Amino acid sequence: MSAEKYMVHVSLGNRSYTINFVDLIINPNTQKNFLNILNNYSQAVWITNQTIYKIYNGFLDNINVNENNNNLLLIPDGEEYKSWQILETIMTSLLQKKLDRKSVLVAFGGGVVGDIIGLASALYQRGIDFIQIPSTLLAMVDSSIGGKTAVNHPLGKNMLGVIKQPTQVLIDSELLKTLPDREFSAGLAEVVKYGLLGDKEFFEWLVFNSEKIINREPKVLIPMINKCCKMKARIVESDENEQGERALLNLGHTFGHAIEALTHYKKFLHGEAVAIGMVIAGQLSQLLGNISDEELAQIKNLLNKFGLPTNWITWQQNLNSEDFLSQMNKMMSLDKKNQAGSLRLIILAKIGSAEIRNDINPKLINQAILSI
Amino acid sequence: MSAEKYMVHVSLGNRSYTINFVDLIINPNTQKNFLNILNNYSQAVWITNQTIYKIYNGFLDNINVNENNNNLLLIPDGEEYKSWQILETIMTSLLQKKLDRKSVLVAFGGGVVGDIIGLASALYQRGIDFIQIPSTLLAMVDSSIGGKTAVNHPLGKNMLGVIKQPTQVLIDSELLKTLPDREFSAGLAEVVKYGLLGDKEFFEWLVFNSEKIINREPKVLIPMINKCCKMKARIVESDENEQGERALLNLGHTFGHAIEALTHYKKFLHGEAVAIGMVIAGQLSQLLGNISDEELAQIKNLLNKFGLPTNWITWQQNLNSEDFLSQMNKMMSLDKKNQAGSLRLIILAKIGSAEIRNDINPKLINQAILSI
Repeated sequence: MSAEKYMVHVSLGNRSYTINFVDLIINPNTQKNFLNILNNYSQAVWITNQTIYKIYNGFLDNINVNENNNNLLLIPDGEEYKSWQILETIMTSLLQKKLDRKSVLVAFGGGVVGDIIGLASALYQRGIDFIQIPSTLLAMVDSSIGGKTAVNHPLGKNMLGVIKQPTQVLIDSELLKTLPDREFSAGLAEVVKYGLLGDKEFFEWLVFNSEKIINREPKVLIPMINKCCKMKARIVESDENEQGERALLNLGHTFGHAIEALTHYKKFLHGEAVAIGMVIAGQLSQLLGNISDEELAQIKNLLNKFGLPTNWITWQQNLNSEDFLSQMNKMMSLDKKNQAGSLRLIILAKIGSAEIRNDINPKLINQAILSI
Repeated sequence: MSAEKYMVHVSLGNRSYTINFVDLIINPNTQKNFLNILNNYSQAVWITNQTIYKIYNGFLDNINVNENNNNLLLIPDGEEYKSWQILETIMTSLLQKKLDRKSVLVAFGGGVVGDIIGLASALYQRGIDFIQIPSTLLAMVDSSIGGKTAVNHPLGKNMLGVIKQPTQVLIDSELLKTLPDREFSAGLAEVVKYGLLGDKEFFEWLVFNSEKIINREPKVLIPMINKCCKMKARIVESDENEQGERALLNLGHTFGHAIEALTHYKKFLHGEAVAIGMVIAGQLSQLLGNISDEELAQIKNLLNKFGLPTNWITWQQNLNSEDFLSQMNKMMSLDKKNQAGSLRLIILAKIGSAEIRNDINPKLINQAILSI
């Protein structure tokens, strides 16, 4: 595997790190090299969820990671466990394992594992190192990079967290082979996001290669992931603390978070909610005259081709549209990307370019929500 | 009040801030200036404990801080409330108040309020500003400066936290007038610490002025606090994340934390435990030949004069010495200042100079513990 070709460096002063494309799961030499890195720490604890553990316990056992060796911590699988309470049980386990400030956590899993373990590493004795090994497409292209950590609160998603960069991200596309179709599709929502917000050519490349992508052909998958990592790295480098440009990465997310909260994080995967959110943002961009009907249709078509929901009939449930609208507005008003009461939204200036706006007429926003 | 004379700047790049000596409680002009600063934020929420509120509700009400205005949050008073659970209730209150990323928290209280509100500000939507108004001597000279935030865990004190600098520290010595004697003494333990670890002249100044200090004469109090702030600021500037020199500030703290945990944070104030811890550290330094019997006696005398405990008979309770020793060693081994299994201790190289050691014979440590 041509690992060097795809290496991405995230330059953040003394918080810099590398995103490495590796064959950790199948290659004993890669495993040996990585274990050598972990040996520089006083202790290394791997944290994963029970679903991933069922599939990869053989790999973990091969590298001597198991409960007998006191270097494995299993957490339940699901967004509903990205909570203050589960975080507390994790902190207690780490204290019981007597980790010190020279210990390291290895977050082996999807966005939930990465987010909560990143936060655990930030809080443990005021901060220890952590390494991300993302197991889902969404985590590989988005959540494992850039240091956003969080748990959810009943009053909002990702409300409690810090920015804490990992010391390394290892991307092994082998892990995607066992990813359920629905989760793979959810990750593709974030991939489409990069094309929409920052690179028209990449968006067109996705359209052109959509068949190969959905078939998970390695020759398109790795360059695709690599492209997303590079785009995310450049944005994080220029705006680590989300004072400006980084907010563009939230395209579709304000609507998406409201959708997730409204459905109690149960009906949709994050990526699915983001897909619907991007269509609402796209619709809004079209209403503002920034993109054409055809371009909006192209966005929806690509998301559909990637197995993602794009209209609200699929998620209406028992809400009537008015109730939904008022609840959605209420939730969006608490979204942490909003400032001083005004609703900040990311919309498309055109395909391949997004912008932050806080001056959009609420009626237009409602129209966009209702029209999908 | 010659405020400028005593101003201390903490230089930490984009995390720099000023420690201002002010007359906020009594001077309407100072209040007006400060409220103008707060007006730059979308919302300002003051957080204090019920004890301080009882004394200063008049002041707070004068500046329109009260529950009707939705800008006051009261938390219970006591180290046992510096917990994960109370932190959660704080986060929930802040979310209910719909604070956004441009809001600010004002921590008005002692070390507990400052530590937990600092952490709350770090975690709220991945970080908002916070301002420290320390109400105790200990908080003025130590905990309000340098950004250490934390809550306790049943397995250890301050185990969960981050480094998050305040945007401003306001020191108003007026607040010390209502501080109970025992709390004032506890703060003096940290003052003595600065003399011991870094400035022999200051230690001698404390001995010389001990009578005036214990009588809380403003003409010695403000220069004393100012000196401590300056020393702390210089150490934090050189080692914000406690990779080296900053650990010297933990003189007496490893023992002190064990004493606090053993007595379930109930018998001693933090400063009192630190006083005993400093005597153990001093005893160890004497056993190692670093300080003389006379110097050790001088340390104990000053602490006694300041109303602080210095020997273990005062806190033995129902433990026999062997039980105590084994429990103490067990607790110290989890202290977060230890690395890779070895016990790191801060001892005196001489009066006015401390050093970090991880090579001290455990028998000598036990001897020091038992001899006081």
